[in-house]
Amino acid sequence: MEQQRLPINTTEDFDSPRDFLGHGTHTSSTAAGSRVDNVDYFGYAKGTASGIAPMARLAMYKVLFYDDAAATDVLAGMDQAIEDGVDVMSLSLAFFETLPFYENPIAVGAFAAVKKGIFVACSAGNGGPHGYTMQNGAPWITAVGAGTVDRDLGALIALGENNSITVFGHSLYPENLFLDRVPLYFGRGNRSKETCGDVDLTEAAGKFVFCDHDENGEAGFGPSDEANAVAGVILSTNDGEFEEHADDFETPIVMVSTKDGDYIKSYILNSTEPTVSVSFGSTELGTKPAPKVAYFSARGPDVRSPWILKPDILAPGYDIIAAWAPNVPFAPIRGGEDYLKTDYAIISGTSMSCPHVGGIAALLKSAHRDWSPSMIRSAMMTTADILDNAEGTIIDMTTATAGTPLDFGSGHVNPNRAMDPGLVYDVGVKDYMNYLCAMNYTKPQIAVITGESPGSISCEFATLDLNYPSFSVVMNNTNTSIVVFQRVVTNVAAGGSVYRGDLEIPKGMKVVVEPATIRFDEKYSTAAFNVTVEVDLSGIGGVDYVGIKSDYIGNYGYLTWVELNGTHVVRSPIVSVEASPKT
Amino acid sequence: MEQQRLPINTTEDFDSPRDFLGHGTHTSSTAAGSRVDNVDYFGYAKGTASGIAPMARLAMYKVLFYDDAAATDVLAGMDQAIEDGVDVMSLSLAFFETLPFYENPIAVGAFAAVKKGIFVACSAGNGGPHGYTMQNGAPWITAVGAGTVDRDLGALIALGENNSITVFGHSLYPENLFLDRVPLYFGRGNRSKETCGDVDLTEAAGKFVFCDHDENGEAGFGPSDEANAVAGVILSTNDGEFEEHADDFETPIVMVSTKDGDYIKSYILNSTEPTVSVSFGSTELGTKPAPKVAYFSARGPDVRSPWILKPDILAPGYDIIAAWAPNVPFAPIRGGEDYLKTDYAIISGTSMSCPHVGGIAALLKSAHRDWSPSMIRSAMMTTADILDNAEGTIIDMTTATAGTPLDFGSGHVNPNRAMDPGLVYDVGVKDYMNYLCAMNYTKPQIAVITGESPGSISCEFATLDLNYPSFSVVMNNTNTSIVVFQRVVTNVAAGGSVYRGDLEIPKGMKVVVEPATIRFDEKYSTAAFNVTVEVDLSGIGGVDYVGIKSDYIGNYGYLTWVELNGTHVVRSPIVSVEASPKT
Repeated sequence: MEQQRLPINTTEDFDSPRDFLGHGTHTSSTAAGSRVDNVDYFGYAKGTASGIAPMARLAMYKVLFYDDAAATDVLAGMDQAIEDGVDVMSLSLAFFETLPFYENPIAVGAFAAVKKGIFVACSAGNGGPHGYTMQNGAPWITAVGAGTVDRDLGALIALGENNSITVFGHSLYPENLFLDRVPLYFGRGNRSKETCGDVDLTEAAGKFVFCDHDENGEAGFGPSDEANAVAGVILSTNDGEFEEHADDFETPIVMVSTKDGDYIKSYILNSTEPTVSVSFGSTELGTKPAPKVAYFSARGPDVRSPWILKPDILAPGYDIIAAWAPNVPFAPIRGGEDYLKTDYAIISGTSMSCPHVGGIAALLKSAHRDWSPSMIRSAMMTTADILDNAEGTIIDMTTATAGTPLDFGSGHVNPNRAMDPGLVYDVGVKDYMNYLCAMNYTKPQIAVITGESPGSISCEFATLDLNYPSFSVVMNNTNTSIVVFQRVVTNVAAGGSVYRGDLEIPKGMKVVVEPATIRFDEKYSTAAFNVTVEVDLSGIGGVDYVGIKSDYIGNYGYLTWVELNGTHVVRSPIVSVEASPKT
Repeated sequence: MEQQRLPINTTEDFDSPRDFLGHGTHTSSTAAGSRVDNVDYFGYAKGTASGIAPMARLAMYKVLFYDDAAATDVLAGMDQAIEDGVDVMSLSLAFFETLPFYENPIAVGAFAAVKKGIFVACSAGNGGPHGYTMQNGAPWITAVGAGTVDRDLGALIALGENNSITVFGHSLYPENLFLDRVPLYFGRGNRSKETCGDVDLTEAAGKFVFCDHDENGEAGFGPSDEANAVAGVILSTNDGEFEEHADDFETPIVMVSTKDGDYIKSYILNSTEPTVSVSFGSTELGTKPAPKVAYFSARGPDVRSPWILKPDILAPGYDIIAAWAPNVPFAPIRGGEDYLKTDYAIISGTSMSCPHVGGIAALLKSAHRDWSPSMIRSAMMTTADILDNAEGTIIDMTTATAGTPLDFGSGHVNPNRAMDPGLVYDVGVKDYMNYLCAMNYTKPQIAVITGESPGSISCEFATLDLNYPSFSVVMNNTNTSIVVFQRVVTNVAAGGSVYRGDLEIPKGMKVVVEPATIRFDEKYSTAAFNVTVEVDLSGIGGVDYVGIKSDYIGNYGYLTWVELNGTHVVRSPIVSVEASPKT
């Protein structure tokens, strides 16, 4: 997530490969930074920090500038990386316009990379939580959504003279202020003041302001000049609205859940002189449930290419600590009058989750030199976790209820299991070309992407059916659809094996897998199978299953190949979804 | 050094043994705190922190309260410690009144402790740098002065558009602010404004103010409300005046030497738009020269007892990092509007140096179970360093020139050499009693100190000549004096040895040691010798040799026993000094 700060010397910026912002340092150190003990961000998240692949060689290409972001620079950077012989590329950037792939430099550059056997990971985008917000959804790219981790950062809040009740709220406020038994202000009796749409500064000056949530579970607080007059703010707000304020640390702010907020409100209403003590810089580990899909994480499908389920996978992208440029202003304080510098920063975004996958790809490639980029991606996807640490389906932060593959793809990446996936779905460059043909791109348009001459392109085998580790049935404004998917899987484990196809099927979907059992004689043996998916949404009322409920019509299930004589498990989501949002 | 902060709940203070301030935690952790990696104070002094004797058992007695400090509480605490069977006592407190020893609870309590074989270390006091400012100077106490360490804490200052010149100045400002190319303000042409006696806030608002030193090498800056309006302050000031402002970190302040300050001034005068970039939280290690005598460290002699040279020894007491009470306000920011909390604090004082010696005494006692408190003290004194890390005599910070034994006692403690001193000077309880007799205390007064009945006190062997490892000739308003000192030293090394007495004698002093050689047959053998010191100051003009030059009349040298068949060296200072300050 880009942060505009004080103006910098833009000539220096253009003339130098150095990171003038911090974002490039953060993402790069996440992928491949060295292990450093006792890292923290103003007391938060203290511990040992390490990149995913600290032994990997790292090359950073500066392609965006403070005052300028040109598609040509991005493509030039990607070309240079390919020429420099990298094995993995990780791009924590996306183009916001709704560009077809042949006009999107990331899609074009990524295809050239994949042709050379380079794994390309990209952020899914931060336009969530509504559906159809995917970016970087080209099938040859691994698109990474953002999940939370089992760690909460914030402040301890104690109420009253005896500091008797303690509530933990989210905050990243970068100062360890002494705040003991500070008077609490609550705009009681006036709903606008109660929710801080409107704050009485004369009464609230020097106090800690409590902002109640409204009927939508939202609370607000005024601009910085108000912020500087009060001692701090407690916002009682839905989980999903938290992060809209998380970066607003110009004044000491703590976000509490509406449940905790209601508790605080009741304390205030029952006290003649309510007071609060607040301690910033707190970290809770082992929190549950985690991961959750971060509210901002872009949701599938990609409207340009809805026939392939996106995002592919989830990785940590919420409150992630990594290195930052140490000599730039980072954290505003005193209502923005001053900025603090820092060697490490905690920020959120699919920018953060993407390099996790990039780093894992480097580890997988280093263990399996013969794997193609799509085999690496397949290994991550079919072994991903769909349950969280509380043994429930991964939750969507926005709704606080179970998410779906349109939120979390194949699930949250599990690097250790990805090392030994059993079977992989391989996709060749020719397959992507056939897909582009089936997208009805013209040959000149395809040629831009594939780098061949238009005349040499053959669309004889055009098909939207890629050999992908997930299955997407596009509904095309109908209630029913039948699609037959053809797949070939490769055994990457040693020796022979037999797998049985298990199905978890929702109402309104019928799935037949043929054959029901597949066998492999040795490593690298392949097996072909068909998956026939019949969707009939008429019986299930349509709007029922994903994220922001009104966004989607569809349903989903799973095909899982289970090894009979071993322990490998190869899971693929099967989803039905409309090609584009309802108007 | 006590710091008055926001009012606390004094009932809680009285009802609890907990440290409500931090000073007790700091001094105790210095003596015996556990080893902790990656400790720092808002970025300063980062490293592994450890008490001197981390394996020692620690008992903390709370004897001073926020609102109250009673002599009876101090004595009650000391009595309790004695009853609890401690081996070492360390008191980082002193009574400011000029009390005779029989009215000073620390002196009285310490005598009871020494009678029980307990080593007692006390701060020398922070009333320096003028002479005759000693407190806790009773002969049975080990009085500890404060020295600097080879570590400078502060801020990097870079000047101009290109950040080309870098100056390091002293600061403990607790925020890592982004301060890049901030305009510099200098009250040019108006001497009062130039030295910041008077700051034009309209012009200086938002800028970094440079304060030049006056002809005395001093610079000033106004009160907090001014402080909050400017971006920060650079004070060009003598080393000795530094610390009067060091704690004034309510606004970003950096103290630079007058030499560096003159450089900055010349940059300002030669620039049309002078700017400065400042980075706080910097630490330089291995700085020279160190140690220096801290300006505030109390200087000898103790006017109550000038016949024994005090302070005894120097230990680290300047910018010392140790643990602090984590739940109290510590560092003021925003001109004092807010306070930051911290787990570790950097403060200065003989309060800090005293527990260093207490911890060393614990280590020595643990290695030499049979040593009395005075043997432990003697071992530290005769093996102390009188040269700094630049191989010059320890410097007095106040004058930036060589100090004397009236500033640093026997020198800066060297724990490893104190482990193996060769010879020690032992003082028995009876010897202290004879000294009190010679001080012309009445028997009832002596009885208060010694705990006997007045009737059982015998002053038959009254003498001011204690078997001390230093020699003090009190001049009594004359230019000449002859004193014969009698000493007995005990061999604490294994086996026999022979020592030769070497002398370093200044003009105006003649010293004869008889015998010139002493020998020991085995461990615990003793040898007696006389030291005749003849002082004649008439030839040397009197005022010439110590600290603030006008404070003293006298001279000093050394008697060093050098082992002929080994490596032990046993050094004792010989000083001549007036009993009280010139009126």
